[in-house]
Amino acid sequence: MTTATKSEAYLKGEALCKQLHGEHSGDQMVRELQDICPDHIGQIYEWAFTGIMARPGLDILTREYLIIASCVTLGYATQQLKAHIEAALSAGGTKEQIVEVILQMLFYAGGAATSNALRAAKEVFNNSH
Amino acid sequence: MTTATKSEAYLKGEALCKQLHGEHSGDQMVRELQDICPDHIGQIYEWAFTGIMARPGLDILTREYLIIASCVTLGYATQQLKAHIEAALSAGGTKEQIVEVILQMLFYAGGAATSNALRAAKEVFNNSH
Amino acid sequence: MTTATKSEAYLKGEALCKQLHGEHSGDQMVRELQDICPDHIGQIYEWAFTGIMARPGLDILTREYLIIASCVTLGYATQQLKAHIEAALSAGGTKEQIVEVILQMLFYAGGAATSNALRAAKEVFNNSH
Amino acid sequence: MTTATKSEAYLKGEALCKQLHGEHSGDQMVRELQDICPDHIGQIYEWAFTGIMARPGLDILTREYLIIASCVTLGYATQQLKAHIEAALSAGGTKEQIVEVILQMLFYAGGAATSNALRAAKEVFNNSH
Amino acid sequence: MTTATKSEAYLKGEALCKQLHGEHSGDQMVRELQDICPDHIGQIYEWAFTGIMARPGLDILTREYLIIASCVTLGYATQQLKAHIEAALSAGGTKEQIVEVILQMLFYAGGAATSNALRAAKEVFNNSH
Amino acid sequence: MTTATKSEAYLKGEALCKQLHGEHSGDQMVRELQDICPDHIGQIYEWAFTGIMARPGLDILTREYLIIASCVTLGYATQQLKAHIEAALSAGGTKEQIVEVILQMLFYAGGAATSNALRAAKEVFNNSH
Repeated sequence: MTTATKSEAYLKGEALCKQLHGEHSGDQMVRELQDICPDHIGQIYEWAFTGIMARPGLDILTREYLIIASCVTLGYATQQLKAHIEAALSAGGTKEQIVEVILQMLFYAGGAATSNALRAAKEVFNNSH
Repeated sequence: MTTATKSEAYLKGEALCKQLHGEHSGDQMVRELQDICPDHIGQIYEWAFTGIMARPGLDILTREYLIIASCVTLGYATQQLKAHIEAALSAGGTKEQIVEVILQMLFYAGGAATSNALRAAKEVFNNSH
Repeated sequence: MTTATKSEAYLKGEALCKQLHGEHSGDQMVRELQDICPDHIGQIYEWAFTGIMARPGLDILTREYLIIASCVTLGYATQQLKAHIEAALSAGGTKEQIVEVILQMLFYAGGAATSNALRAAKEVFNNSH
Repeated sequence: MTTATKSEAYLKGEALCKQLHGEHSGDQMVRELQDICPDHIGQIYEWAFTGIMARPGLDILTREYLIIASCVTLGYATQQLKAHIEAALSAGGTKEQIVEVILQMLFYAGGAATSNALRAAKEVFNNSH
Repeated sequence: MTTATKSEAYLKGEALCKQLHGEHSGDQMVRELQDICPDHIGQIYEWAFTGIMARPGLDILTREYLIIASCVTLGYATQQLKAHIEAALSAGGTKEQIVEVILQMLFYAGGAATSNALRAAKEVFNNSH
Repeated sequence: MTTATKSEAYLKGEALCKQLHGEHSGDQMVRELQDICPDHIGQIYEWAFTGIMARPGLDILTREYLIIASCVTLGYATQQLKAHIEAALSAGGTKEQIVEVILQMLFYAGGAATSNALRAAKEVFNNSH
C-alpha cells in the first residue's frame, strides 16, 4: 500500500474508521502511526475495517462487542479496549450493554481482566457525554 | 456449595446448562468433574450460568458469541470453544454467523488463533446435523 | 445479587476482603466498581472471597502466594499483583518470601513478567512500613 | 554448558529433578531433549532446578504448588502441569491440596484454564497409585 | 474477496505460500479452510503472504525466524509453529539455527513454551529428510 | 549466586549487557533490581546474557530481533520491548528493519500488540539520536 494512491478498500475503511472512531481516541491512535509506519494505517483501513468489520453477516454493533470481548481477554489491550467502547457507543450501543459484554468475560478471561476493563469503561463513560 | 442440598441458583444454572449443552460435549465436560472436584460443578452452574449467562441485558445467543470470541482469543481453550459453538447452534445461531464471529477475531487475536478456531468449528459442524 | 439485601456469602466475603485489603489498594479497586457495576462487587465478595479464598484445605497465606503466582504469569495484572502483595503481607507473609514466590515464576512465566513483578513488589514494599 | 563435563550445579539439579520427577513424565520430557538440544537439559538442571527450585526461603512443596499455579494460568502448558502435579505428590502434597491449588486459579486465570487443569489432574491421579 | 476472480495479491501470496509450505503441513492447513471459510484463504494469501511476508526490508528466512519466535511465545500455536519450521527449512534455514531461534525464547516466553517448541521441532526434523 | 564473588559467567554477561543496554533504559531496569532481589541480576547476566544471548549460531542483532518479536507477542512487556529496540539499534539495526520486525508480528500476535509496539518504537526513536 502506498499512501500516494489510495485504493478503494483504503478509502472505504478510512470512512468506516472515521464513522466509528472519528471524534475519539481510536482515530488518533491510527494517525499517530503516520510517521513511524504509514503502511500500517493502510493495513488497518483495508484489512481490519474493509476486510473484516464491513463484512456482511453480523451488524457493526455486534462486531464491536466481539472486539471488546477480545480486548478484555487479551488483558494488555487497554487503549484498544477504550477505543472500541467509544466505537460501540457511536454504533448505538448502550452503557448497560457494554457493561454486560465485559461482565460476560468474567468466567473465561478472569477477574483481573474483567475488573480492569470495567474501570477502563468507567473512564470512557465519564469522558463521553 | 454442597452437593447434598442444591441451591436455587444451582438448579437454575444446571437447567440452563442442559438446555444449551445437554446433548453435546459441554455437558460431558462438566460431568467429568464429578469425581475430581464436585464443588466446581456447583461453581459453574451457580456462577457461570445463573450468575453471568442468565443475567438480563443481552440475549443468550449474543452471550454465546462473546464467549466464542473469548475462547478464540485465549488460544488454548479448544474444548470450551467447541462446546460453545454447539451451544450457539442450540441457541439459534447459524453456521454462517459463527464463522463471522471467529473471523472477527483475526485482527486482534491473530491468525493462528483464528484459523485453529475455524478448523474447530468445521469439526463441530461436521458432527452436528 | 442486589445490593439492597446482602447475602451471608456477600457479608462473609466483604469481611475477608476488608481483613486482607482493608487499608490498601485492593479495597479501593473494589469500591471503584460501585458506580460502573455494583453487581461485580457482589461477585468478588461472594465468589472470589467466600467461594474460593475462604475454602478449607489451604491456608490464606498460601492462597495469596498462589494468586501472586497467577498475577505474575498473566503479565498484565499489575494492579491486582500489588493488591495481593499487600494482602500477603497482611496475612503474615514476609518480603523475603514474596520475592521468592515471584522469582519462582522465572522459568515458566519468563523474565519480563518476573522482573516487572519484582519492580512492582519494590514499589509496594517502599510504601508499606 | 557442555555435556562432557557436568558442573556441580548440573549434577545438583539433575539429582533434584530425579527426586521429584524420577519415575514420572517430567523426567522423560527432559530426556527427550537430548538429541534436539542437549544444552537445554543443562539449562533446566542448572537454572530451573539448582538456580530457582533449590533456593532457600520456600519449601519444595510450596514451590511445586506455585509452578502448578503458573502452568494453570498459562493455559497451554498441559504437559508441564501434569509433570508438576506428579512432582507435588512426590514432594508430599495431597490430591486434596492439589485440587485446591487449581481451584484457587479460577478467579484470575479463568474457568477454561481451571477446568482443563482439573481434568489433567484427574488423569494424573488415575495413573498414580 | 471472492474466489471466482483472484486478485493479483491473491495469486502472488498463493505462489509464495506454495514455495514455502508447498509440500508441507502449512499448505494443507490453508486448504482445509476451503469449505468452512474460503474467504480466510484469501486473507492469508493477500494479507499474510503478499501484504506482510513479501515486503522488502527483511529477507524471507529472517521473517520465518520471527514468526517462529511469535509462535513459540504464543504457546498454543503448535501447528503453526511446525508449519513455519518447515518453511524456514524450505527458505534455507538450518536445523541448528532453528534450535537457536527457539532457545532464544527461553528468557521471555519461558521454559514450558521453549521445551514444547523444541519437541515440536524434533518431530518436524524427524519427518523431513 | 552471591554478589560478593562474581563468576566468569556473571562478568561476561554484565559486559554484554553494558555493551547493548549501557546508555539506555535496559541497564537501569536491571540496576533497579539491586535492592529488591540482587540475585535476579546475576540470573539475568549469567543466564539471559551469557547463557543464551552470547551463544554461537545466530548473530546478536538477529537475537535482538527475535526478542523484540517475543516482547511484541507477549503484549504486556512494553518496558522490555523498548529496552531491546534500543539494544537492536546499539547492535547495528536500523529503524526501518525494527519497524519491519514489529510489522511481521501482525498476523499472529495481532493488531493491538503490533500497533502498541509501533507506538513504543516511535517513542524510542524520538529519544535516540
